[in-house]
Amino acid sequence: MKVTTLKEIAETLGISITTVSKALKGYSDVSSKTKKAVLELAKELNYTPNSFAVNLRTQESKTIGLIIPEVVHHFFSSVINGIIAEAEKNGYLVIILQSNESLELEKKQVALLLNKRVDGIIMSLSNESNDDDHIKEIIKREIPFVQFDKISKLIPSSKVIINDQKASMEAVQHLIDQGCKKIAHIRGPINPQNAIDRFIGYKKALEKNDITFDSKLVYTCENVTFEEGIQFAKEIVNDHPDVDAVFCITDLVAVGVLSYLNDNNIKVPQQIALMGFSNWFMSQVLTPKLSTVDQPSYEMGASSFNLLMEEINYKKQNLPFKPKTIELTTSVIIRESSIR
Amino acid sequence: MKVTTLKEIAETLGISITTVSKALKGYSDVSSKTKKAVLELAKELNYTPNSFAVNLRTQESKTIGLIIPEVVHHFFSSVINGIIAEAEKNGYLVIILQSNESLELEKKQVALLLNKRVDGIIMSLSNESNDDDHIKEIIKREIPFVQFDKISKLIPSSKVIINDQKASMEAVQHLIDQGCKKIAHIRGPINPQNAIDRFIGYKKALEKNDITFDSKLVYTCENVTFEEGIQFAKEIVNDHPDVDAVFCITDLVAVGVLSYLNDNNIKVPQQIALMGFSNWFMSQVLTPKLSTVDQPSYEMGASSFNLLMEEINYKKQNLPFKPKTIELTTSVIIRESSIR
Repeated sequence: MKVTTLKEIAETLGISITTVSKALKGYSDVSSKTKKAVLELAKELNYTPNSFAVNLRTQESKTIGLIIPEVVHHFFSSVINGIIAEAEKNGYLVIILQSNESLELEKKQVALLLNKRVDGIIMSLSNESNDDDHIKEIIKREIPFVQFDKISKLIPSSKVIINDQKASMEAVQHLIDQGCKKIAHIRGPINPQNAIDRFIGYKKALEKNDITFDSKLVYTCENVTFEEGIQFAKEIVNDHPDVDAVFCITDLVAVGVLSYLNDNNIKVPQQIALMGFSNWFMSQVLTPKLSTVDQPSYEMGASSFNLLMEEINYKKQNLPFKPKTIELTTSVIIRESSIR
Repeated sequence: MKVTTLKEIAETLGISITTVSKALKGYSDVSSKTKKAVLELAKELNYTPNSFAVNLRTQESKTIGLIIPEVVHHFFSSVINGIIAEAEKNGYLVIILQSNESLELEKKQVALLLNKRVDGIIMSLSNESNDDDHIKEIIKREIPFVQFDKISKLIPSSKVIINDQKASMEAVQHLIDQGCKKIAHIRGPINPQNAIDRFIGYKKALEKNDITFDSKLVYTCENVTFEEGIQFAKEIVNDHPDVDAVFCITDLVAVGVLSYLNDNNIKVPQQIALMGFSNWFMSQVLTPKLSTVDQPSYEMGASSFNLLMEEINYKKQNLPFKPKTIELTTSVIIRESSIR
């Protein structure tokens, strides 16, 4: 690429580099005639300030990093949407990295972003994340940092979360209110805090209603996929023919369950009521329409960026910043799959 | 943020900055004892090379820009996935910007990326794009550039596309083969090349089968949404009760049509056969399952990045690069919504 430099402009016009620089910045000690000549030539030659040099001077990249487990996931793509929209308003660019739910990749990407000297990092942990040395490194280097959705409670950073326990309790309570007595739970993997909390909420709702908890009714996803939904639905139907409801860690898994039940002529909700989590777009177009928990994903992204921005601004002024936690509101969306 | 500099390491150890720099790079004219001391201190102080300074020296940012119309769109999120995965393998970071289908925002974002001096740009045009001065600017500045999906044919850049006309002809031919005689088409907006080509393919398939083209059976989306699918389905059913098939610009619109038909007890495919485009994940879990055209979105992303990488490498060696066009294969996926 041919890059126009201040030097070329200066040489072409037979003036000093300093004068060119001053003219471009509109300094008053440069004549308007010179200013005009410089601006015209700069435009003609497609001159743009060298952003690397500007970065070096300001030590600001106006770029933030975002690490998420999976882009092709309605929840995360909607979060990205919220982050990009807010970043745009504030003149920030967003580098997006995908951990593919792998701890190893996640560590590598944190290192990449630190090395790139982004102004801040927003992150949702991978399912594999069970050690947090790489996260501690972000804190140690005092890089503004916000966690959302799948977080590490122990890391002292800002967080944007929902109350997973409460949301899950409400969802299961609705199933119980519909007369369901034997409710299976397809939970998320062992590590993520939100999978743990949703499981606890399920258990608490049973306890509150004097329904005995049975660990055999709990199925644990490894990868939280559509295929696992199909597989566990088959196991539930075969092993526990009297199960009358299934509560799933996320809509994608619930869609797998629904797909299996529909294909095997098991009536939803009459024989088995079904409840997802997250309110993906597709949940409203299924037959029957899927009941779920609405999780404000766009707002989660927007809030995460704004919290990060706040920390970046504190840092610029060398003020101490106390991490904040924003808890967003969820609601149970009752559709056809759970009304009996 | 406290940033460790070479100077601090030099002062702490009482050696010159040059020696510190050489030690970090493993130069042989520095004693192994000094090297060890420098490396240990650098690690202790969290020293990382200043990437801005490195960028200034190499004029390479190892970062590319991606501008897409919408992140929360199964097709585009899957493309992003392909791009990020290949970028990761090649040590590149990806800045993602969203035009929200707005030409004004798209122009602003091209300017931002040019100013940021990314090493290359990958882009799918917004629906509003009907002028391409901003795109010509990318070419003029000799920034490696790849267009995919919604492209401008006139811009001399590499492109990753599908044969929209052919794909669309095959989809409509399938509907005709199923006995459909009055096929409505819900097309995309006026500007995008792919919407134009899919419309032409629809028209050609009718002509080939001696079915008279009727412009009243063509409905034009402004925003290509689920809601437009519902609205147009209603209009089609009211205005043309003898329509026996609908071919939609994309699955999202087809899902809107299906939703309206299901809610109004109009049998799909018996009364109206339905065909989407793009093969979104959800098309396979609908009732009935949606027939569609499979468009290899992940591969489209991966190929776009690899073409860009090729151009970047040519440029590094100051070799002339001739833009290439990769055409990916599509296939009609026949499911329940179109089998009569």
